[in-house]
Amino acid sequence: MSERLDNDQRAQLQALYADMAPEGLTPLWEVLSALVPKTPESPATVHRWRYSSARDYLLRAGDLISAEQAERRVLILENPGLQGLSSITPSLYAGLQMILPGEVAPCHRHSQCALRFVMEGSGAYTAVDGEKAVMERYDLVLTPGGQWHDHGNPTSQPMIWLDGLDIPTVRHFDAGFAEKLSESVHPETVPPGDTLARYGHNMRPMRGGTADRRPSHQPLFHYRFADWRPALETLAANAEIDPHLGHALEFLNPADGGPVMPTIAAHVRLLPSGFETRERRSSDGTIFVVVEGQGTALIGETSIALEHHDVLVVPSWRPLRLRADTKLVLFGFSDRASQEKLNLYKEELA
Amino acid sequence: MSERLDNDQRAQLQALYADMAPEGLTPLWEVLSALVPKTPESPATVHRWRYSSARDYLLRAGDLISAEQAERRVLILENPGLQGLSSITPSLYAGLQMILPGEVAPCHRHSQCALRFVMEGSGAYTAVDGEKAVMERYDLVLTPGGQWHDHGNPTSQPMIWLDGLDIPTVRHFDAGFAEKLSESVHPETVPPGDTLARYGHNMRPMRGGTADRRPSHQPLFHYRFADWRPALETLAANAEIDPHLGHALEFLNPADGGPVMPTIAAHVRLLPSGFETRERRSSDGTIFVVVEGQGTALIGETSIALEHHDVLVVPSWRPLRLRADTKLVLFGFSDRASQEKLNLYKEELA
Amino acid sequence: MSERLDNDQRAQLQALYADMAPEGLTPLWEVLSALVPKTPESPATVHRWRYSSARDYLLRAGDLISAEQAERRVLILENPGLQGLSSITPSLYAGLQMILPGEVAPCHRHSQCALRFVMEGSGAYTAVDGEKAVMERYDLVLTPGGQWHDHGNPTSQPMIWLDGLDIPTVRHFDAGFAEKLSESVHPETVPPGDTLARYGHNMRPMRGGTADRRPSHQPLFHYRFADWRPALETLAANAEIDPHLGHALEFLNPADGGPVMPTIAAHVRLLPSGFETRERRSSDGTIFVVVEGQGTALIGETSIALEHHDVLVVPSWRPLRLRADTKLVLFGFSDRASQEKLNLYKEELA
Amino acid sequence: MSERLDNDQRAQLQALYADMAPEGLTPLWEVLSALVPKTPESPATVHRWRYSSARDYLLRAGDLISAEQAERRVLILENPGLQGLSSITPSLYAGLQMILPGEVAPCHRHSQCALRFVMEGSGAYTAVDGEKAVMERYDLVLTPGGQWHDHGNPTSQPMIWLDGLDIPTVRHFDAGFAEKLSESVHPETVPPGDTLARYGHNMRPMRGGTADRRPSHQPLFHYRFADWRPALETLAANAEIDPHLGHALEFLNPADGGPVMPTIAAHVRLLPSGFETRERRSSDGTIFVVVEGQGTALIGETSIALEHHDVLVVPSWRPLRLRADTKLVLFGFSDRASQEKLNLYKEELA
Repeated sequence: MSERLDNDQRAQLQALYADMAPEGLTPLWEVLSALVPKTPESPATVHRWRYSSARDYLLRAGDLISAEQAERRVLILENPGLQGLSSITPSLYAGLQMILPGEVAPCHRHSQCALRFVMEGSGAYTAVDGEKAVMERYDLVLTPGGQWHDHGNPTSQPMIWLDGLDIPTVRHFDAGFAEKLSESVHPETVPPGDTLARYGHNMRPMRGGTADRRPSHQPLFHYRFADWRPALETLAANAEIDPHLGHALEFLNPADGGPVMPTIAAHVRLLPSGFETRERRSSDGTIFVVVEGQGTALIGETSIALEHHDVLVVPSWRPLRLRADTKLVLFGFSDRASQEKLNLYKEELA
Repeated sequence: MSERLDNDQRAQLQALYADMAPEGLTPLWEVLSALVPKTPESPATVHRWRYSSARDYLLRAGDLISAEQAERRVLILENPGLQGLSSITPSLYAGLQMILPGEVAPCHRHSQCALRFVMEGSGAYTAVDGEKAVMERYDLVLTPGGQWHDHGNPTSQPMIWLDGLDIPTVRHFDAGFAEKLSESVHPETVPPGDTLARYGHNMRPMRGGTADRRPSHQPLFHYRFADWRPALETLAANAEIDPHLGHALEFLNPADGGPVMPTIAAHVRLLPSGFETRERRSSDGTIFVVVEGQGTALIGETSIALEHHDVLVVPSWRPLRLRADTKLVLFGFSDRASQEKLNLYKEELA
Repeated sequence: MSERLDNDQRAQLQALYADMAPEGLTPLWEVLSALVPKTPESPATVHRWRYSSARDYLLRAGDLISAEQAERRVLILENPGLQGLSSITPSLYAGLQMILPGEVAPCHRHSQCALRFVMEGSGAYTAVDGEKAVMERYDLVLTPGGQWHDHGNPTSQPMIWLDGLDIPTVRHFDAGFAEKLSESVHPETVPPGDTLARYGHNMRPMRGGTADRRPSHQPLFHYRFADWRPALETLAANAEIDPHLGHALEFLNPADGGPVMPTIAAHVRLLPSGFETRERRSSDGTIFVVVEGQGTALIGETSIALEHHDVLVVPSWRPLRLRADTKLVLFGFSDRASQEKLNLYKEELA
Repeated sequence: MSERLDNDQRAQLQALYADMAPEGLTPLWEVLSALVPKTPESPATVHRWRYSSARDYLLRAGDLISAEQAERRVLILENPGLQGLSSITPSLYAGLQMILPGEVAPCHRHSQCALRFVMEGSGAYTAVDGEKAVMERYDLVLTPGGQWHDHGNPTSQPMIWLDGLDIPTVRHFDAGFAEKLSESVHPETVPPGDTLARYGHNMRPMRGGTADRRPSHQPLFHYRFADWRPALETLAANAEIDPHLGHALEFLNPADGGPVMPTIAAHVRLLPSGFETRERRSSDGTIFVVVEGQGTALIGETSIALEHHDVLVVPSWRPLRLRADTKLVLFGFSDRASQEKLNLYKEELA
């Protein structure tokens, strides 16, 4: 409200509020500035999860509950500002998932879109509609909304990856559907690598009267470290560095040249040793994973050390500088895909 | 979790949860089914606001606080299932706004998109970027995100309209920006009706080197009852009625042929006297306003009488039948625009 | 070729050309500069058709052949630079069609898209898929590719309109299909005005499980003078005039906010008395019709007087200035719709 | 015309035609059925160029004229039905280009889009905006409209490739612009392989305030045999064969998931030995190159043997069956990209 009210007016208003509350009527003017803030005021906080510590808890969970019992054995990275909401930002969920040798995480599908970024292990798989993506360290694997998926670990080592999902967004829109397959493991439909062969090289199958096996709007689900890491190195060797981002490559959906999934965008960055980005803020709260090296995140007055495999969340509109103490490689994802579609995305470059 | 745990396992898990909670780690398996429900389980409830009652409270508020004091004198239609959230569905906000003779609601702009649907009065205005839309009963007026807007009532009668905004969605994405103009009223930039003349007839201004005055992605902001009501009548006279919707027309953004705003879709419907729709449910919780006539909403076992000017909210995935006790004309809006962009929208027709 | 050849080399090349010609092989270097010109070198010429004269021939044709005999009684406006090609520009066709009282032009459909711009008469119709558009002077009526259409004149006066089609473009791509209906006149499917009521006001029918009667990508086919002329006047009253175009409004397809048809864009302009545009050239050869007033087209050294109802063609990349000797209102159409989709459109503003 | 005319009527019509011809007016009814044919009647014919023969002529040309003298040393594959038009179909141009050891084809750019499909040689380059694509056999290299390009052969062997351009289409729209660089060879802007590294793996550079070096709508220009051939083999191993196409992969523009260029679509196919496709016809006249094996094209009553490296053109709407006498691998390109944008594309599957 733009002006102060006298006591009498205030009392009469309170009486009005009390009278109408049972009818589902409340006064906008008491909350307007909170509902329509001048700049984003995220309830989420900046937070870093030490991978070493989280990993210990995950192994302890592995002793107590099986992947099949848990359906998904995941420790949620819950933002301290969003307690009870299972969210890392207001719109996104993240967790660390572990699957032990011989385990299977049973097949299900749901409206929620998920990405998996492999932290350690080699040779476990995510099967999407019955096609296995054999996962190697720092691979990005998608399970887009509505596609059947199960995970399995036929190796002799645990496999740990980061899950990133749009669970809070699907909840926000009351639009989530899920079902379990009657069997734990989806029957194999095609050998591993088939989709990557067909959609991974700027090509797509061409058919006469029939549709391709893969959904046309979301065919690809595997982006390999073996592909992206050399590409990032080439970019770093040839291109002028971006002062606000470092050398950065965004992952794309080949169906339309847009973000990997309708609600989530993902990218990787390389900062040469000693490089510090200029300050930047954007409306998409972002989750970072340290893939290589050590660095420091400078967010306003706060300075946060980043070690190997740490996970950092920077909520919307926090001014961020990243400093590479050694060569620093990061994976990041955010809801920028949603925000651009809804005409909400903004950024500010210092 | 798919299986029951024994007491010892349960105790050890609780110990694990307690240990890791301070580090922002929580177990997914305890909440998975709630996070990924089989079908939408909206916290919102079905609710109908009696217009006559809400109007009384609004007039009482008019005696206690001015439009300028309140910035916007609005009673929020807060869903009983979403107390404290100022939301009518998890993603949308609705309110009833009144502006009294001689009042001005001062000029501001914000990321949030708003629609106004006029309930009573004639001749007050919404000015968008300095161009007045003179509002008549049952007109639809938009103030798209980022566009300056103020309201004024130069007439001798109160003006009441329904506001529909995407406030919860902008909050969900932490992406809201707002500012007030230094003056209460935006200077007039062009006479009333200019935009409607230029964009209202399937045309747009064509210029050489310069952009049009209006934003190209969101130029139009006035959809008149004088246009839509006869169009709906013609549709009803000529077309076979849709068994699930009745005769329905959706309002469009002429820039792209899509919904009126990036986050909100709006439509009108006509049900002939005695007509009852077949059951339908959709993932977009919808707000309805009774424009003409009387009817009944049948939602599962619940039956809700609809009188003139009542507002009804039907959350996501509730099975709805609408019965027209007289010829029934409804205005409706929902977040279907967002859901389609994010690949979330679903509907089921009985 | 970048250098001159000596006689011997030339002779040997000629022998090579002769030897390989029967095998369908010819030397690029002899024609490269013609195939890839520095700027567009249209074979089309600037030409103006006097309406009064063309009209006389059309009436004479009306005495000699019936609309039904002719299938379409049309005088093609053939560009003097494109003799034998039935084209007004290399990509477009234009003609003047007349239908006499009581006549019918029988129902057919074809891949080619057509627009009709009414020159004189009132009350004849174009029926599209069995729905009549009752045509008034200066109305724009479309018969999009693939839609059945017939014309009839139940009035007591001749009706004359300009046809604009993409015949040369469909021929260029070898992609034309056509068929005649077994009956002369398509059975009436819906009363006149139905489509305009439903799609003419920034709305579209909304249905549950079924499609609308009209094709979703091309629903609208009638743009009325009664709508566009006042809109143009309002634009002229309120907007700063565009120095290269005058006051101009483009007609839009409500399905996507783009040009009226996939291959053809159309617009109207108003130039106040005494106004002269600055020089402009564009890669879309354009056909103009004088709707009101008198003016002069200045194309390089050439000056062409424009009288009421005259038709003028200005081929690609000719520098054009338009001078209004009285208030001048023009209708125009071109292949800009095609060129923009194929990434070919360019313009240059002096 | 639907009915015969008597002699007198005919004579009067002829007089009318003669009178109005000087004014650029001709009768539609005399040519309507030719202008609007029932099905495509391409002036182009089916034709096969024997590579061995064309290659001999090309080498002979190599003795007579240098690449620099010729600007481009190319034998046009001119369709016998389109003599004098330098076209292989009405909308496309094709030629065989040779560049000898040490030669350079000087740098220019033009509105026309070009693809290059390497027939023989290894190690010559096409430089696009100063970045070399080092060309290997059966690589596909693009020089999209408006991008600078030069070719050079630093190896000791001739290099021969097929050129495919949209020259007739740009001519059709009178929309061609071209210029030569002041130097023969564009200065190197970045090492070879940079663009492929950055855009070749479903990624794109992400920058803050500045644009990427490559044009966003058309960044990629190199599709390697080393990538597409194994992909095609994987498809053939795993997928059910398409009865009308064989195993087919279309090349994509990563910017939008559409065809490689705005006007041209390209693909590769594999037919197992002994496989014969079912009959299919489509409105896009298509050029095929035999990459591996031998086969037969069956077009209506005509049977055409296909040897290694032969080039075959099949005009619009000719019914085609392809028979693989050995394992047969083909490259193909057509104007389907244009036709789909203009809503013209059709196909019919037997």
